[in-house]
Amino acid sequence: MQSVHIVSAYDEELKYLSKRIAAMGGHAERMVEQAVAALVNVDHGLAQKVIQDDLVLDEGQREIDDKAIIIIARRQPMATDLREIVGAIRISADIERVGDLGKNVAKRVASVDGRQPNSLFRGLEALADLALTQLKEVLDVYASRSVERIGFVRDRDDQIDAMYTSLFRELLTYMMEDPRNITPCTHLLFCAKNIERIGDHATNIAETIYYIVTGDQMPADRPKGDKTDKVVLPGTVPAK
Amino acid sequence: MQSVHIVSAYDEELKYLSKRIAAMGGHAERMVEQAVAALVNVDHGLAQKVIQDDLVLDEGQREIDDKAIIIIARRQPMATDLREIVGAIRISADIERVGDLGKNVAKRVASVDGRQPNSLFRGLEALADLALTQLKEVLDVYASRSVERIGFVRDRDDQIDAMYTSLFRELLTYMMEDPRNITPCTHLLFCAKNIERIGDHATNIAETIYYIVTGDQMPADRPKGDKTDKVVLPGTVPAK
Repeated sequence: MQSVHIVSAYDEELKYLSKRIAAMGGHAERMVEQAVAALVNVDHGLAQKVIQDDLVLDEGQREIDDKAIIIIARRQPMATDLREIVGAIRISADIERVGDLGKNVAKRVASVDGRQPNSLFRGLEALADLALTQLKEVLDVYASRSVERIGFVRDRDDQIDAMYTSLFRELLTYMMEDPRNITPCTHLLFCAKNIERIGDHATNIAETIYYIVTGDQMPADRPKGDKTDKVVLPGTVPAK
Repeated sequence: MQSVHIVSAYDEELKYLSKRIAAMGGHAERMVEQAVAALVNVDHGLAQKVIQDDLVLDEGQREIDDKAIIIIARRQPMATDLREIVGAIRISADIERVGDLGKNVAKRVASVDGRQPNSLFRGLEALADLALTQLKEVLDVYASRSVERIGFVRDRDDQIDAMYTSLFRELLTYMMEDPRNITPCTHLLFCAKNIERIGDHATNIAETIYYIVTGDQMPADRPKGDKTDKVVLPGTVPAK
């Protein structure tokens, strides 16, 4: 009886970690959605709310770290359970970073006046939709541990990169049309970059889930994120 | 005799983690130094070397993760030792990210022609010097576990932020002077941002060291990095 009780309490501890991570994931998704909405509608109040909300994720990560270490010390888990716990530490760190990225977008609302063309804001929304869909589906895979579904992650990461590169070009073009666009569009560039990075964190989480379930690491040479480092618009380099 | 032998092998395992982290830290520092040198001298060969070098850190992080988990499973460490091992996992993740940031700078060498004013490149070098000094000293604290010295971290992080903000303004001004500067200066902006982020990772590492040594977390409300989200240069917002 005692032994059943102990095992069951242990299971509850592991389930608690998963549940906290699911809650942190939902919180991070809402933060990013609201940050992008604040940016598009130049809603300073909503931006402030997002900035405040980030504390919840900082505390969530700290709690998961503390709990995970207590579980390891007390239960001395082996193999799969140990991967579960170390995986929870990693995933909560990625989710906390997603929240930071949402907060960074919200902080830039102060520097954007909403006068930039609609297509830019639609582009940022579309990029955020794609990155958030990626994050949601990866967190679904975490909840179900159905690692065989994980193939979608790389295809969608490619789509996110392509969309980011196109937005990057559009922003540069707009900056070149009128110097008054340079400051706000620079802030939008960093917002786009932050959103693109959310996709990278979703991919990190997918890799951690793969490791939890299989005990193996996914191959290291995954081509990562940003392809804009080679973007040079014609006619923009000073003539020789 | 057997017990002494086991304890000593265990100590060796812990020391091995610290040694690998010191080596990864040195590797990351060199990558960032070379990335900035490649940028300043538009040295495409050196940039390629930095990009290749990043694989070493990916492998280093993976090795530390694997070793750490084996040690936890085999030795079932308590308290301080457990914090050592979990701390090693965290620090190696931060160092791996520093390497990624160095690689990102190196990748942008392809898009910068070196025709931007000298002061910009001197500014980037100074920012990188400061961030690398921060990283080096934090890694020294890790090697010596002399956590009482850790106070310097926040002061220097403030200096890094101030220097980054000033460089950010300078880059925007230069972009507004001539649209042909927009593309290369946008890439330099991202380089500056990457270098500023190195300071944040050094601060993360300092927090982890504090946790290893004391078992406590540093307070969460440390003001983080980038203050440029509020930078709007006068006359750059379209008139109402």
